[in-house]
Amino acid sequence: MNDLYANLELMTPVRIGIIGSGNVGSGTLEILARNAAELQAKLGFPLVVTAVSSQNILTKNVSNIPAAARVSSNWRDVAYAEDVDILCELIGGTTTALEVIEAALKSGKPVVTANKELMALKGAALLDLATANGTTIHMEASVAGGIPIHAVLREGISADSIQAFFGILNGTSNYILTEIESKGSAFSDVLAEAQRLGYAEADPTADVEGYDARFKLALLAQLAFGQHVNPTEIFCEGIRRITPFDFQYAHTLGHTIRLVCAARQTPGGLALSVRPTLIPRSTILASVLGAYNAIWIRGAAGQDTFYYGRGAGPLPTGVAVVSDIMRAARDLKSGATLRVSPFNFQKLTEAPLAPADGFKSGYYLRFRVKDATGIIAQLGTILASHGISIDAVLQLPSDDKKNLPFVITVEPALEASIRHALTAMRSLDFLVEEPLALPLEKGL
Amino acid sequence: MNDLYANLELMTPVRIGIIGSGNVGSGTLEILARNAAELQAKLGFPLVVTAVSSQNILTKNVSNIPAAARVSSNWRDVAYAEDVDILCELIGGTTTALEVIEAALKSGKPVVTANKELMALKGAALLDLATANGTTIHMEASVAGGIPIHAVLREGISADSIQAFFGILNGTSNYILTEIESKGSAFSDVLAEAQRLGYAEADPTADVEGYDARFKLALLAQLAFGQHVNPTEIFCEGIRRITPFDFQYAHTLGHTIRLVCAARQTPGGLALSVRPTLIPRSTILASVLGAYNAIWIRGAAGQDTFYYGRGAGPLPTGVAVVSDIMRAARDLKSGATLRVSPFNFQKLTEAPLAPADGFKSGYYLRFRVKDATGIIAQLGTILASHGISIDAVLQLPSDDKKNLPFVITVEPALEASIRHALTAMRSLDFLVEEPLALPLEKGL
Repeated sequence: MNDLYANLELMTPVRIGIIGSGNVGSGTLEILARNAAELQAKLGFPLVVTAVSSQNILTKNVSNIPAAARVSSNWRDVAYAEDVDILCELIGGTTTALEVIEAALKSGKPVVTANKELMALKGAALLDLATANGTTIHMEASVAGGIPIHAVLREGISADSIQAFFGILNGTSNYILTEIESKGSAFSDVLAEAQRLGYAEADPTADVEGYDARFKLALLAQLAFGQHVNPTEIFCEGIRRITPFDFQYAHTLGHTIRLVCAARQTPGGLALSVRPTLIPRSTILASVLGAYNAIWIRGAAGQDTFYYGRGAGPLPTGVAVVSDIMRAARDLKSGATLRVSPFNFQKLTEAPLAPADGFKSGYYLRFRVKDATGIIAQLGTILASHGISIDAVLQLPSDDKKNLPFVITVEPALEASIRHALTAMRSLDFLVEEPLALPLEKGL
Repeated sequence: MNDLYANLELMTPVRIGIIGSGNVGSGTLEILARNAAELQAKLGFPLVVTAVSSQNILTKNVSNIPAAARVSSNWRDVAYAEDVDILCELIGGTTTALEVIEAALKSGKPVVTANKELMALKGAALLDLATANGTTIHMEASVAGGIPIHAVLREGISADSIQAFFGILNGTSNYILTEIESKGSAFSDVLAEAQRLGYAEADPTADVEGYDARFKLALLAQLAFGQHVNPTEIFCEGIRRITPFDFQYAHTLGHTIRLVCAARQTPGGLALSVRPTLIPRSTILASVLGAYNAIWIRGAAGQDTFYYGRGAGPLPTGVAVVSDIMRAARDLKSGATLRVSPFNFQKLTEAPLAPADGFKSGYYLRFRVKDATGIIAQLGTILASHGISIDAVLQLPSDDKKNLPFVITVEPALEASIRHALTAMRSLDFLVEEPLALPLEKGL
């Protein structure tokens, strides 16, 4: 009784099947191999990889697969195997991955996944399927790989009522922004360099347009607020238009610029947005540099908490996957019939999101103009006619009189008013391009 | 099958007994009262407080106790009650609290505690007792109340091998240090003001001498490294000698000063210390101001992660207690016979700590001297004779020629060499007081 681990049955290994041998799969295999003794000491029983599959596994050299494990290019050889207790879906995407997860759950096997897109879109239904089959899904690796944000929301501060959170959830765009900031280089140059270094993909659209961050925001919002969120309904704006000038102006205002995923409970509903935002340099979120991720949470009772770590990478994400495997394995050994899943997420309520038109914020408006007289007066007239009050006008020195950047900051105004004002400005012939409007957060 | 919550047995309330009605007890009662509906929605069953005790409860006005709950000035009326499923020990200390916890565990009841001192000293034995009785202890609130650091170590990054962590774990001393930093006031003045505001206790010893932080460091080190730590063996130095001058010099060096709880795996064993330390202002840890707590963790695979939040306060700590209650309640409903406890902590290994003499670090040495000639030469000679290389000499302007502060920073040296050099300096008659030696971290 005193030593559960003396029980031979409990010492039986828990058998792991892994589908996918890319970045996350290889990181998971490495953690399982190099920490094997430590994991067994913590759990009281060994974790053993019995089967691995990926499309090209028969021709690719995949490290850290145990000699006794079966390898196959067909995922069904792993998902339906008798000798697999826990299935890891590490291929991503929403088609085969969905088949894989459904197959495992229907046979009562717990699933560990790193799939943000699938969990954002179908997570609640998959958790229902898991519950119906007496098992569950673990998804720590799906958002901010190195940050255990699921454990925090599911276990750590589950008693609190979350009011808002602000995340930096895409490492590639944060890397690009902080490179523009520190080196003063143009977006296109930094992106090319990031692609050369492997920090950005050949097609960078999902990262720089905010679509990747949007899936993560949808997933975290569902966990934090227990409300169903359709990712495509989230207001989303990318970072392509951010220039070194914008950082100069932001710094003058005591701010910096980050691609912020914001979630707020408001009287008009849950307000979600992914967009480049001016945040005070004194806030901890502003000190998140390079490929790191971070999440700032505001709880009604627990107040502010902050979480920071690697956003991606084989090993940080592997830690998340294997920590989930440990929990799933302990569940299997525990005799529990009710699994520990994120309850909020399992019973999502349906409510419309707050319309983006109703977002209220201070704004940073950056213009590029051909030098002319009366510019401020004309812009000020349009802003005033939309009920928008100017806070400050900034113009740093510049030589190019045909393409002068300058900035107007305005008092808190509705997004709708800002959009209408920008539309009205289209007729002004001194504008070289459409003005850039970014929210300006006074505090965070 | 599809909806576990339709099961009437699962809908039966889980009954909570609370012992202690001070800050943490009252915060716990408030969270349970105001979030009752949300907690029930998350869990699928209600949490009901059935009994509350504290010494003065019959004369004191304690809010948020349900009308139907029994109140008693005798803890045994709660700990031994038939109608209590989960017991919360929120009185602190190590005598009655120990009796309370042992009584509950022996009757198979899960315990939720906020007691850092008791868990640091006897946690492993109490977890053994819990296991022997088929239950467990939950202690999220025991360290850094508002930060779910236990959930992080137990669940979130449990697959990683922790190499080191650095914590700011005492809110009172962090408040005092950041007030000295921002206002340039003397320690004694800031302490008096903190006492007036209720941020420091009438007897501030435990906070300002580092003893409170030392218990927390011991507890976290046991969780992170799975090794038994005797708190009194940890190198510990308080903040009484830190002056506004030290912050001026630290800033000149690009650093600030915080009471850092450091834990490092080293070839000579686990190295633990609580001491004021110069850390770079650019590190996120440096941005922890006022009564906030923070923990920086370095994992072998997951690399750096960082956690930040309120260190204390009724509501943040109440969130931690109630989140633990939720987990304990779900355990009770789950049918599990193996409980989710921090495995590392349950099977602590025994090994000596690395001796403090062997700590190696750059150091900041601050002197106060009567102005004389040859001071640097004499100090330099003593340092050189102990094998210590000077990095820089700093002297900011000062008017008091009889009590001139100045600073020497030195290259990484052994703590033992520094101590021996300081001892040798005692014979120098130009020293107004013993030099202050603080570790100087180049990076964190």
